[in-house]
Amino acid sequence: MENGSQKWRFQGNKRLNSTSAISLRGIIDMLIGNLSTDDPRPIIPLGNGDPSQFPCFRTSTTAEEAIVDALHSTKHNGYAPAAGVPSARRAIANYLNRDLPYKLSPNDVYLTSGCIQAIEVALAAITNPGANILLPRPSFTFYESRAAYENLQIRHFDLLPDKGWEVDVDAVQALVDENTVAMVIINPGNPCGNVYSYDHLKLVAETARKLGILVIADEVYSHLTFGSTPFVPMGVFGSIVPVLSLGSISKRWVVPGWRLGWIAITDPNGILQKTGIVESITGYCNITTDAATFVQGAVLQILENTKDEFFSKLIETLKEAAEKCVDGIKEVPCLTFPSKPEGSMFVLVKLNVSLLEDIGDDLEFCMKLAKEEKVIIVPAGMAFGMKNWVRITFACEISAVEEGLRRIKAFYQRHAKKQ
Amino acid sequence: MENGSQKWRFQGNKRLNSTSAISLRGIIDMLIGNLSTDDPRPIIPLGNGDPSQFPCFRTSTTAEEAIVDALHSTKHNGYAPAAGVPSARRAIANYLNRDLPYKLSPNDVYLTSGCIQAIEVALAAITNPGANILLPRPSFTFYESRAAYENLQIRHFDLLPDKGWEVDVDAVQALVDENTVAMVIINPGNPCGNVYSYDHLKLVAETARKLGILVIADEVYSHLTFGSTPFVPMGVFGSIVPVLSLGSISKRWVVPGWRLGWIAITDPNGILQKTGIVESITGYCNITTDAATFVQGAVLQILENTKDEFFSKLIETLKEAAEKCVDGIKEVPCLTFPSKPEGSMFVLVKLNVSLLEDIGDDLEFCMKLAKEEKVIIVPAGMAFGMKNWVRITFACEISAVEEGLRRIKAFYQRHAKKQ
Repeated sequence: MENGSQKWRFQGNKRLNSTSAISLRGIIDMLIGNLSTDDPRPIIPLGNGDPSQFPCFRTSTTAEEAIVDALHSTKHNGYAPAAGVPSARRAIANYLNRDLPYKLSPNDVYLTSGCIQAIEVALAAITNPGANILLPRPSFTFYESRAAYENLQIRHFDLLPDKGWEVDVDAVQALVDENTVAMVIINPGNPCGNVYSYDHLKLVAETARKLGILVIADEVYSHLTFGSTPFVPMGVFGSIVPVLSLGSISKRWVVPGWRLGWIAITDPNGILQKTGIVESITGYCNITTDAATFVQGAVLQILENTKDEFFSKLIETLKEAAEKCVDGIKEVPCLTFPSKPEGSMFVLVKLNVSLLEDIGDDLEFCMKLAKEEKVIIVPAGMAFGMKNWVRITFACEISAVEEGLRRIKAFYQRHAKKQ
Repeated sequence: MENGSQKWRFQGNKRLNSTSAISLRGIIDMLIGNLSTDDPRPIIPLGNGDPSQFPCFRTSTTAEEAIVDALHSTKHNGYAPAAGVPSARRAIANYLNRDLPYKLSPNDVYLTSGCIQAIEVALAAITNPGANILLPRPSFTFYESRAAYENLQIRHFDLLPDKGWEVDVDAVQALVDENTVAMVIINPGNPCGNVYSYDHLKLVAETARKLGILVIADEVYSHLTFGSTPFVPMGVFGSIVPVLSLGSISKRWVVPGWRLGWIAITDPNGILQKTGIVESITGYCNITTDAATFVQGAVLQILENTKDEFFSKLIETLKEAAEKCVDGIKEVPCLTFPSKPEGSMFVLVKLNVSLLEDIGDDLEFCMKLAKEEKVIIVPAGMAFGMKNWVRITFACEISAVEEGLRRIKAFYQRHAKKQ
């Protein structure tokens, strides 16, 4: 570029500017930028899955104490090994082993800076020129951004709203070619709030095996279930198909800001070792940052000492919030949901724009809602490729969920087509 | 790959396995793997620049208290904005402004997970197909790994050992072509332990301006100087050439495990904005992980409240350790250094293998030293492209530095050529 007489040779990374355009953070920032400034009411943030700011979702004192202990020990101020602090790797292996029919070793666990970095590492480890990956539609936006950045071609299979957001297995089979390397499933579901049954997960595993692809199982919402379907980790089927299981303390302990996640190699047959995936995971961990060492140093105490009462209270709160949320949605004629949420912190809701006078799509709905009612919800067209759906989180103070839905109803009433 | 009757379509990322092969972590792991297990003496770790494990390098209580306060505030358990917590951006801008002839705004600062991620973000932001970057030889290995991963072509300019490791400015000019986008300087120097003068930095800035390339100034060791040359930030010359200034609390507060770094846009003419580099930095921050939010929340208190006595004691300790280190090196005939270290935590030392009987190069020297003496130092051929040099850190208990050099002397005497 020219700058007076000076010519500069550099410019921004064009690929980056296009891939990052679809980040959820960017979308929520845009909505926040559209908030009315002269409305004195508080913002109702039903966008992000981060309830840590609300008193009813405060993390356990055990977890806080574990961090302080690790800090004061002065043993965890230095660099950690690339794969993580050994005590943390062992603690996470033991934690995951409670639900697996075989035993992970500490060496099967790689610590990451949140589940975000676990996704980063997993996608970097499996990419190669020409490779493609199967992503669910809808899925968590970050997979799209990061796969695009890694030049992993993306192919989408649908989740079926009328079947509890199950994977369309026939679609998966139709999408695969010789360059397909992996498929992603997110369970409990984001953005759908569904929970997959044992039988459905087994079917997914068998399908992936038949196709010769690995499964990336995003279980960041593991154990956050409050319906009739219990959480089953995909690693249970690791002897059918090799699985990279991604997790984190972010959601179950309500501390996404602590940035502690992991990748577990749930693959008792050692196929990921033989195919070089494990070596690539190690390789990428060598050339990227880590979770803070003292947070790693606290993991053993966090995983082993957190009381059951903390988890059961969290589930009760989420369950009640989900109920209030769906009750509120039922009051808004332009919004319907195919099934009640059973897990995670979200419900994906269909928007019927034909009932609205001056709103053309989900994006316009969410932008105007932010401006007029100071309620943030996510337009699923831009965020998840689901045009005219919206994602609502209920992980808020229950009174805020109720107030948010009241405002959405008032918003609907103002914009409804006259009969 | 075939696995019985099962064919799998995936394999490790080949590019990753080659680029990560040169990580410093990998080299040090290899040396540690070569330690004798039946030698009861303690390991002397003169490899990594991480003295946090030694009591004389314990971080300030102010910094520890700041973390505990941020944690207990419960305001910093959630996700941070992609560019960082506003109070931390403002605190870092103010901190850097103390040494700049113009004022950074909080928006000029991007928080990262350690300086490692600052490098990651900076290189991602400037890469484009065909682009190349000028790296010093020797430099910090991570630049090589990450540039290779980003498909940024690498060209090396020499640092001149006989001129205090100054940049060979003629070489820089000879290397540039129309695809060159940036050059990296590391000051205070890693692995060389040098500190650049105001005049030399100005010459580098004028050279970069003439060539139309930006400067990435790695100042992770900023203010850690103990010789006659004071630290001058490259940003001082930001009106000559746009500079991305990388920093961290890792070294000056001796907490590399806390993973808090930054990129500052030290560019008062706004050229990095106009050329899209700032947008790309934002874009990459949107699709990668962050520093732990409560560490970000503690930054204001850490930067503003740490006592001068903490810093002056740290500098005194480093200075004394450096003295003991060079005194010890002088006792080993096969090791010489072009100049005494004046900053950072390292000295780069030339190895004269012709004085040794059964050691062919620096790698063999370091491997055998680890095995026979349990002393870890870094072979600079593999690590920094400086064959038959070794990097020694003196950021250890002083008694350990002395003991390490005594063992190196004994090692030399056993392996010296008979006259």
